[in-house]
Amino acid sequence: MAKLKVGVLGATGMVGQSYIALLKDHPWFEVSFLAASERSAGKRYEEAVEGRWHFGKDIPEEVRGLLVHSIEEMGEARKTCDFVFSALDTAVAKEWEERYAEAGVPVVSNSSAHRWDEDVPMIIPEINPDHLKIIPIQRKKRGWDRGFIAVKPNCSLQSYLIPLFPLHKEFTLKAVIVTTMQAISGAGYPGVASFDIIDNIVPYIKGEEEKSEREPRKILGRIEGDLIVEEKGIVISAHCNRVPVIDGHLACVSVAFESKPTREEILEIWREFRGVPQELSLPFAPEQPIIYRKEVARPQPRLDRDKGKGMAVSVGRLRECNVLNYRFVALSHNTIRGAAGGGILIAELLKERGFFNNL
Amino acid sequence: MAKLKVGVLGATGMVGQSYIALLKDHPWFEVSFLAASERSAGKRYEEAVEGRWHFGKDIPEEVRGLLVHSIEEMGEARKTCDFVFSALDTAVAKEWEERYAEAGVPVVSNSSAHRWDEDVPMIIPEINPDHLKIIPIQRKKRGWDRGFIAVKPNCSLQSYLIPLFPLHKEFTLKAVIVTTMQAISGAGYPGVASFDIIDNIVPYIKGEEEKSEREPRKILGRIEGDLIVEEKGIVISAHCNRVPVIDGHLACVSVAFESKPTREEILEIWREFRGVPQELSLPFAPEQPIIYRKEVARPQPRLDRDKGKGMAVSVGRLRECNVLNYRFVALSHNTIRGAAGGGILIAELLKERGFFNNL
Amino acid sequence: MAKLKVGVLGATGMVGQSYIALLKDHPWFEVSFLAASERSAGKRYEEAVEGRWHFGKDIPEEVRGLLVHSIEEMGEARKTCDFVFSALDTAVAKEWEERYAEAGVPVVSNSSAHRWDEDVPMIIPEINPDHLKIIPIQRKKRGWDRGFIAVKPNCSLQSYLIPLFPLHKEFTLKAVIVTTMQAISGAGYPGVASFDIIDNIVPYIKGEEEKSEREPRKILGRIEGDLIVEEKGIVISAHCNRVPVIDGHLACVSVAFESKPTREEILEIWREFRGVPQELSLPFAPEQPIIYRKEVARPQPRLDRDKGKGMAVSVGRLRECNVLNYRFVALSHNTIRGAAGGGILIAELLKERGFFNNL
Amino acid sequence: MAKLKVGVLGATGMVGQSYIALLKDHPWFEVSFLAASERSAGKRYEEAVEGRWHFGKDIPEEVRGLLVHSIEEMGEARKTCDFVFSALDTAVAKEWEERYAEAGVPVVSNSSAHRWDEDVPMIIPEINPDHLKIIPIQRKKRGWDRGFIAVKPNCSLQSYLIPLFPLHKEFTLKAVIVTTMQAISGAGYPGVASFDIIDNIVPYIKGEEEKSEREPRKILGRIEGDLIVEEKGIVISAHCNRVPVIDGHLACVSVAFESKPTREEILEIWREFRGVPQELSLPFAPEQPIIYRKEVARPQPRLDRDKGKGMAVSVGRLRECNVLNYRFVALSHNTIRGAAGGGILIAELLKERGFFNNL
Repeated sequence: MAKLKVGVLGATGMVGQSYIALLKDHPWFEVSFLAASERSAGKRYEEAVEGRWHFGKDIPEEVRGLLVHSIEEMGEARKTCDFVFSALDTAVAKEWEERYAEAGVPVVSNSSAHRWDEDVPMIIPEINPDHLKIIPIQRKKRGWDRGFIAVKPNCSLQSYLIPLFPLHKEFTLKAVIVTTMQAISGAGYPGVASFDIIDNIVPYIKGEEEKSEREPRKILGRIEGDLIVEEKGIVISAHCNRVPVIDGHLACVSVAFESKPTREEILEIWREFRGVPQELSLPFAPEQPIIYRKEVARPQPRLDRDKGKGMAVSVGRLRECNVLNYRFVALSHNTIRGAAGGGILIAELLKERGFFNNL
Repeated sequence: MAKLKVGVLGATGMVGQSYIALLKDHPWFEVSFLAASERSAGKRYEEAVEGRWHFGKDIPEEVRGLLVHSIEEMGEARKTCDFVFSALDTAVAKEWEERYAEAGVPVVSNSSAHRWDEDVPMIIPEINPDHLKIIPIQRKKRGWDRGFIAVKPNCSLQSYLIPLFPLHKEFTLKAVIVTTMQAISGAGYPGVASFDIIDNIVPYIKGEEEKSEREPRKILGRIEGDLIVEEKGIVISAHCNRVPVIDGHLACVSVAFESKPTREEILEIWREFRGVPQELSLPFAPEQPIIYRKEVARPQPRLDRDKGKGMAVSVGRLRECNVLNYRFVALSHNTIRGAAGGGILIAELLKERGFFNNL
Repeated sequence: MAKLKVGVLGATGMVGQSYIALLKDHPWFEVSFLAASERSAGKRYEEAVEGRWHFGKDIPEEVRGLLVHSIEEMGEARKTCDFVFSALDTAVAKEWEERYAEAGVPVVSNSSAHRWDEDVPMIIPEINPDHLKIIPIQRKKRGWDRGFIAVKPNCSLQSYLIPLFPLHKEFTLKAVIVTTMQAISGAGYPGVASFDIIDNIVPYIKGEEEKSEREPRKILGRIEGDLIVEEKGIVISAHCNRVPVIDGHLACVSVAFESKPTREEILEIWREFRGVPQELSLPFAPEQPIIYRKEVARPQPRLDRDKGKGMAVSVGRLRECNVLNYRFVALSHNTIRGAAGGGILIAELLKERGFFNNL
Repeated sequence: MAKLKVGVLGATGMVGQSYIALLKDHPWFEVSFLAASERSAGKRYEEAVEGRWHFGKDIPEEVRGLLVHSIEEMGEARKTCDFVFSALDTAVAKEWEERYAEAGVPVVSNSSAHRWDEDVPMIIPEINPDHLKIIPIQRKKRGWDRGFIAVKPNCSLQSYLIPLFPLHKEFTLKAVIVTTMQAISGAGYPGVASFDIIDNIVPYIKGEEEKSEREPRKILGRIEGDLIVEEKGIVISAHCNRVPVIDGHLACVSVAFESKPTREEILEIWREFRGVPQELSLPFAPEQPIIYRKEVARPQPRLDRDKGKGMAVSVGRLRECNVLNYRFVALSHNTIRGAAGGGILIAELLKERGFFNNL
């Protein structure tokens, strides 16, 4: 089988680099088109990221020499590739993602620009794969033939929404109070100044609490007519903190359900949970999406962030909450599951569901 | 005025060292007696802590040469000093604090050994100075003439209980969900292994959630007959985490009251709050016990832990909670307000209230 | 005595903030003029640094409301103040420091722009106070009446040059191999990205090795005719590293002399060393400029950087070197002794030597 | 081919765990015998390390259930396994390694107990594989039939000795001044207290400078008669520091040769260097043992420690030294190349050279 050709918009930034690093040796996709800002356009990739390639694994050999295009070269993208990952800054993502889609190039986006468009699916493949059904509606509405936009939610919520989802299906979520301790890589590069975070915690991340509270309601929502409707019955209150950890967002969660499950029911549901990505054996799907740790002090970012190649969520310390029903700790890798890896899993789902077929 | 003579039990450990460092140049107290385990007994203090004095400020000149006594030399303590601070490990604190008290030496303790004795006051001087009234009852019950035991609560709760207290007086606390991010110095020395905490968070601290949830109920309780009765109307649920921060415990708090105040009422109460230590101008009392930071991302451990010489609590980010009533962030210095400094403030209060007079 | 009026150029950056924080309650100087880039000009200082004041100690009350001037308002500086501290970026320092001096305002500079002008003294007050004698020559040469420029050397070399200087006087330095481990605050703000330095070391700092190797030769040089001549007999080889430490540059030094001293001679020289700042009792002069630590594993940045209010150099581990003569470890506080504090000490020396008299 | 059966002495400590983690799926070796102190003896391995397994990768399935033997059960080891890795503490290693060897069990040791025995080879397989020829002499001298002891040198020197070795062969090393910045994992567990190292550097590691200076002379020495003779022509002076880095020892090296090579000669030698492990394609041999990084600020611990699966040494910043001939920066993974991985590579060499054949 020939691999699909993939583009990366915003290829020189931290998320763009992460896509390129993770797509090395991908069985279905190969990186064939790169676009970035004017500063980098016209250079070979290796040259464009000189002195700011952020990963221990070196730039994949086959990407080193690729030309970095100007973001304006949608036509080239249309000719060269089957779809693109957008790692663009939110400020420019809105315009360019739409122009690529309009030009016939499907966009799988990491940015928050289109997350609140009611015809744009915001996907965690284990949770709401069926929201992809909005895509034909989106295309029709916007007059796009082949292009479309599908988005990934914010990194902060992946750690707790994935374990909450299968419980919600059985017991109906009512309220969540969550405190996140988020890794610095979540802020991109240069991101957080070292002077601000060594021997310190920053108890605020711009826009993060709003995303953490609202995005889950869309993800757990449903398609009604030609739009995706939020699940308004769930109330979330988030405290988001930046901590001196390289990778891995940790969350302390207190939760109340309509009907309170037993501890054993919860553990069994987590143990047994498999989603569509697991059923389809998607390449980036972790075998077991939710891993419960029995140890008294786990999960921990450095020990557990790489589980399932960075795509599994690790959970631990399930116990009763004195105020709501239960408490637990959850962890996910913010730049893999929470960013580029999550985007790749969406693209794999799109491929299996045939959304790239008509290209 | 002659200074009171003070002893430190457990003088070579981290909390003991902290007492010695903080008591340098104290206007009312001077360190005159040191006791530690057999390993150190018989040595001069400087020699006993060689290679493990943990502070940048060197050992105070006047303490360097003091003899370290065996913990068994209560008689010597009785002769030498007016009262002692106990920085003993919980494992041995129960026995020895009682033996010192029985021998006629008042004990102000940092350990958790006697916190749940119903005749032992657990004091935050700004909150429950009147619980000292249990002391005569304690003496009588236990047949002690001059000695008694008064204790300081756990370090984890000082950051949130002090700002919650004046609100509780007006609006009656119902429920609290709190996530703490606690500094490594709270674990003593050697305490947390560096391999466990660099680039990491440990989402569990043994015994800490229980203390954080239950001790506030005693501190907010009242004396009934000859014992201190817990305030059972308050429910607290705590998530305690260890973070790679040297000093300063941070707490993310969500709280519900019987009657919900306005944001302005809360801010005014915090601004105006002064307790007995402030009224008495105790040497270690911070002028303003609760400092509200208007900045969007404060308080932060490294920037705010030393406010009020480490005795003030810094608070920020007061906003509505989607689940309970309000959310905020609070910070206190765990080894000053939360340990030795808190103990010294209790001793200052005891002195002003005349509890050392009859010695 | 009325205080001298002081200006700060580049007042909103990290070094500028540091000057403002350190000058609070200075017995001789008071901050009266602030200048910064266009972005800040016209704002009150508090407003100009909103969200980026980097210190735990809040902005001094008397500076909060000061107007931030455009850097172009030299005339205003001439009227308002007796001299200025320049905390300008090197890129703009050359032009503006000269324009201020030309306008009659003496400049004490932290930037590297004029360090290699042969008529500009580069001063460590304990080492080469007499280099100030070049100032009249500088004024004459450049046609300046009251203004002049005096500069502070780079932060990296203060830890090792101060202890080497009194040894050099007795035994004549020949060769030095030094490895520095430099704190992140030395890079300004935002400076080093946290993603680059947590759980990491960066073994390179742009321009730093050159400065560390060459500036000592000028500082140890002498005035010949109308210029300062380098001491070419000393060869230095520097390895400069950035480490995850907030403040405090540490140096591992191997050194060879013309005539090899005994260990006891070195220790005595360090113990006894006092310079002109100590003789004059300048306010920022540490009582003992070189503090030798006998402990086996000192100095350490977190424990020793604040010695002498951040102005003393701490030294330890003096032992024979297998290749050169001796080895030792040295530490100085990079933002106090190595930046603003060092600048203030130069200004104090200038004042005592009468260089501000004719203003 | 049946795998050789391997034992691990000191199996529950950090180095022991590292052996077990690294030997998972080894093509030649399988873990079959575990020994530890009395505290662990008699337990299943999983139980013995409960709460103190230090790695993100979980305990290999096939080791979880293995019985932990008392260290005294040499007889069992003799029956069960072909050789053992010793990860014993130095304090007990001397006795027990000899008793195992005497009982007929070859020992590959990580401890320093026998490094200075003149009949014990201290091996870096790329440097001195021929020192294994001392083994028959050792056996004869000590009256051992099948057993013997071979040791791995200290972790601190692997980063600089491997790149210095091929240069030494061509140009003859004279003098080295090296400053190491060593990761906390090198101190074992619990090792360095977090309170001592966060926002700090400790400029001393007990015994480390002596090892760093002397062990290279034995490794670069030669067999004369029945003992290994040190290379006394090389003088090394080491400054060893502990830094807040999880894994990866970094070294800043200044070096002088008998005849000074050109920069190009050095780079070519490093590029071309292959040792016996590479020629034999040993499983743990990195394809390229010395990797030169052209980037201006590399190698860095977090980015480069895992190169060659943690077995390659990364080198960078080769430039002239103002005092000696050249300077450079070198890095190796201290718990892989510098500990368990280095031990495994020795065992692989021993196997290929037939030292386990007669068992």
